[in-house]
Amino acid sequence: MPQDIYDKIMMIAKRRGFIYPSFEIYGGIAGFYDYGPLGSQLKNNVENLWRKFYLLKDNCIEISTPTITLYEVLKASGHVEEFTDLTVDCNQCKRSYKVEDIIKKGISIEQAVKEDKIICPTCGASLHDAHPVNLMFTTTIGVGEGRKAFLRPETAQGIFTNFHLLYQYSRKKLPFGVVQVGKGYRNEISPRQGTLRQREFSMAEAEVFFDPQDKTHPYFDIIKDKELFLFDNEKDWIISVADAVKKKIINNQALAYYMYLTQEFLLSAGVDPKKFRFRKHAADELAHYATECWDAELNSERFGWVECVGIADRSAYDLNAHIIASNVDMYALRSFDEPREVSVTKLVPKMNILGPRFSGKAGKIKEQLEQMDAATVKKITVTIDGESIDIPKDCYDIVEMKEKQSGEKFVPHVIEPSYGIDRILYFILEHNYVEAKKKDEEYTILKLNPWVAPIKVGVFPLIGDDALVRIAKEIDRTLRNAGIATYYDEGGTIGRRYARMDEIGTPFCITVDHDSLTDQKVTIRDRDTTKQERKKIQDISTYIKGKISF
Amino acid sequence: MPQDIYDKIMMIAKRRGFIYPSFEIYGGIAGFYDYGPLGSQLKNNVENLWRKFYLLKDNCIEISTPTITLYEVLKASGHVEEFTDLTVDCNQCKRSYKVEDIIKKGISIEQAVKEDKIICPTCGASLHDAHPVNLMFTTTIGVGEGRKAFLRPETAQGIFTNFHLLYQYSRKKLPFGVVQVGKGYRNEISPRQGTLRQREFSMAEAEVFFDPQDKTHPYFDIIKDKELFLFDNEKDWIISVADAVKKKIINNQALAYYMYLTQEFLLSAGVDPKKFRFRKHAADELAHYATECWDAELNSERFGWVECVGIADRSAYDLNAHIIASNVDMYALRSFDEPREVSVTKLVPKMNILGPRFSGKAGKIKEQLEQMDAATVKKITVTIDGESIDIPKDCYDIVEMKEKQSGEKFVPHVIEPSYGIDRILYFILEHNYVEAKKKDEEYTILKLNPWVAPIKVGVFPLIGDDALVRIAKEIDRTLRNAGIATYYDEGGTIGRRYARMDEIGTPFCITVDHDSLTDQKVTIRDRDTTKQERKKIQDISTYIKGKISF
Repeated sequence: MPQDIYDKIMMIAKRRGFIYPSFEIYGGIAGFYDYGPLGSQLKNNVENLWRKFYLLKDNCIEISTPTITLYEVLKASGHVEEFTDLTVDCNQCKRSYKVEDIIKKGISIEQAVKEDKIICPTCGASLHDAHPVNLMFTTTIGVGEGRKAFLRPETAQGIFTNFHLLYQYSRKKLPFGVVQVGKGYRNEISPRQGTLRQREFSMAEAEVFFDPQDKTHPYFDIIKDKELFLFDNEKDWIISVADAVKKKIINNQALAYYMYLTQEFLLSAGVDPKKFRFRKHAADELAHYATECWDAELNSERFGWVECVGIADRSAYDLNAHIIASNVDMYALRSFDEPREVSVTKLVPKMNILGPRFSGKAGKIKEQLEQMDAATVKKITVTIDGESIDIPKDCYDIVEMKEKQSGEKFVPHVIEPSYGIDRILYFILEHNYVEAKKKDEEYTILKLNPWVAPIKVGVFPLIGDDALVRIAKEIDRTLRNAGIATYYDEGGTIGRRYARMDEIGTPFCITVDHDSLTDQKVTIRDRDTTKQERKKIQDISTYIKGKISF
Repeated sequence: MPQDIYDKIMMIAKRRGFIYPSFEIYGGIAGFYDYGPLGSQLKNNVENLWRKFYLLKDNCIEISTPTITLYEVLKASGHVEEFTDLTVDCNQCKRSYKVEDIIKKGISIEQAVKEDKIICPTCGASLHDAHPVNLMFTTTIGVGEGRKAFLRPETAQGIFTNFHLLYQYSRKKLPFGVVQVGKGYRNEISPRQGTLRQREFSMAEAEVFFDPQDKTHPYFDIIKDKELFLFDNEKDWIISVADAVKKKIINNQALAYYMYLTQEFLLSAGVDPKKFRFRKHAADELAHYATECWDAELNSERFGWVECVGIADRSAYDLNAHIIASNVDMYALRSFDEPREVSVTKLVPKMNILGPRFSGKAGKIKEQLEQMDAATVKKITVTIDGESIDIPKDCYDIVEMKEKQSGEKFVPHVIEPSYGIDRILYFILEHNYVEAKKKDEEYTILKLNPWVAPIKVGVFPLIGDDALVRIAKEIDRTLRNAGIATYYDEGGTIGRRYARMDEIGTPFCITVDHDSLTDQKVTIRDRDTTKQERKKIQDISTYIKGKISF
């Protein structure tokens, strides 16, 4: 069977140390992969490049929160109810399937379920009783009954639940962005598509908080004339960022800004611009929290167009949900130009009733009542010293009154660019994989961008001569101490060694030869042009740094 | 109640954005912490410094494997049986405790259990039935019964289970080291000690594979005259690395080399050398896999000496365990200088019996039998096309014979430096926390090493004048584009702004004043000396880079 590009890449990936199937010595399990020595460095480099875009270019802040997440958080965020896949089980072969994966093309899920058209792809049985299955991994914190928890399905909730602290860190100014880079989990029913659908994956997410009345971005002007590659589900467009916003193709500046930042990041990381586009979600595709979403899609020879980044307008959905569930003040404040008289609904405790009824606790109850938002109050329960107390309606009045205010509270909106790092890593490999022939011998080159290449320089003595080896090893060590990842190799012909480095995407190779002993120079060979230059040994480190720094 | 240093640091940590208790808006839970914007950068910087030591100085390779780990892996490694804490439950107040945490000082666990001396610290009840409780978080992969899995208690197993692939990557040469930086999990019974005992924590581990006949290290000579700070449970020693090995205080070069590397790393990261020591584990302290272990301990004003790094000789324990459990060849090969005649025990399949009995499968059975290690064979079961088949003893002979061999297989030994990143981060804060007074006003300085400081430069316009603000913002953006983390601040007096930067450990502050408009220079102030220098704007980036690069 002829191998397709995915097979070829996974074969090189395993042989050379980019990606290994996890737990292989125990038979493995779908949806888990290890990054080997080269894959792990590629991943570090891509994540660090991402940080340069978000932390330095865009001035976001980064936080890091646990992967284990309390039930309460994901109940409030809607994931307990909504983070599901419609699933069918086969009674005959005892397997379960995601309905979407096994229905015929051109037929909708609803239709398949209604018309009883789901067939087991393994044994051919007719499958019924499609039901939603939650995709979060569950665990328990503590012994005995403990506390119910999940492995996070996204890093975003760790940011939302800290909004009040991060707003304070940002000195109460909007917009500000908060990123998180780390693991996410999704207990897929029966993952296919290899490394593109993992049960444990690496994400990089930014949650950028905006005043809903002002979704402009401070750096918008810098990029407004740049072009975006869009696809409206029918045809491709190339349109400037400013025009896309003006024509309401993209709803606001903020969304458009982060789409452009995403495009620039992906192309810098080495994605092929001809295999890149943004596609807008149709209304029935949107996640439960999103009002608008654009996917950055990358094209694979095997898999077609695949979502790698989602850029969503989550509006006030999540913060609202946590404010309601936790009763914590996570509002932002919008200052008025001058104080305004506004009519407010206030909750006024009646101490003449609270006092006799709750005696010592009345004061604390009064304090809590006064902090509540009268507009959202239905049934009131307060917690005093760990005791839960219902407060009947006769204990307070709800009063409409005029008040001078210098500003007003509101729930910020969120623009979220969410990156699937593992998918991006796969596409960097696929888009940069080149097959070539030299003297009838087939070989492959990974044309990785020097910024992300796992090894920056191969260092070779021309032959195994002691003097050459000593100099080569010295250069190797000097480069490493300067922070440059090297690969020292003295085995086989120089051609063989170049080929080994080409195959793993190393952009430069340095060869120490006999002339080096007298002229203190070495040959530097460029992977893509195959041109060779002679450079002074003492200048190499600076020269290479200039080539590999973003 | 007067605050001690831990309280003070945790207060600053929360107020300024280093560390937040996790899930606080839902009441929180012990053993989980978030890193805020500053904590997260401090963590990135410390982990990257660590990578410089292990990947560049020491030439290890890095891999990245899932946190969710199959049952089979941790069953084989001994964690299912051994990764436990002796626990008691209180029937009255329904809490559980780790026995070690609640017994009186000076009494051993064995004694306390035997003499019935365990008292509930909450209600005073007498507690019985101490029993081991496994500390791994459990989860299930897939729907229905799925497959049992744990959250990894250490990153090390992800390295051991890939040994054969990593050995191939390293071109079958020992020693070579493999590191992993990532999350580990420990479902503590009832964690105390705040951030020092977390249920989800960050680790950096190196597993360095050695030939057990040769535990020398290639870079040992470079560091052999350096001094180690040791504590033998009675007194402190300062002794050279070479002497410690010669006098057998430390058992081998490899262990001593990684102890020194650890010491150098911790001191570079900003640990106080006067609050640092290595302590050797007593025999009854050793983990189930270790033959020798030294802890790098750091001293805290509140907690005393605390283990932050463990450097263990794990011998062949883990690889052996996985070879036995998985039946996969994870041996290394030691070449002889010239071929040797050795006597070997071979398993010889009898085809005359296998043939008739297993017909079509006999060939595959023969192949499997020939690959088995005759020395360890007891009862043989092979798996052919998914079917498990017992092979009775009459189907093969075990034969002693002479054979010419060019080398021999062996199981490598492992030296493991294992770092608890969160503890190190806490100690960097505690050891660099300085209280001072200026004009009767108390303030604090974090004297963080510029290499690890989360913000490298504060950038201020002297006053809110448009011209100064424009230049300051330009400098800020230039520095960020050069990869330098900055904090732009135009609020309050310069003194106030310096104080804010001192409190979070920012080593440099740049002030743009009116002279800057004409002389194109700015003032750079050093946190520790408080000295101010004037520098050309165009030179700042290079100047700062020189100060903050390791």
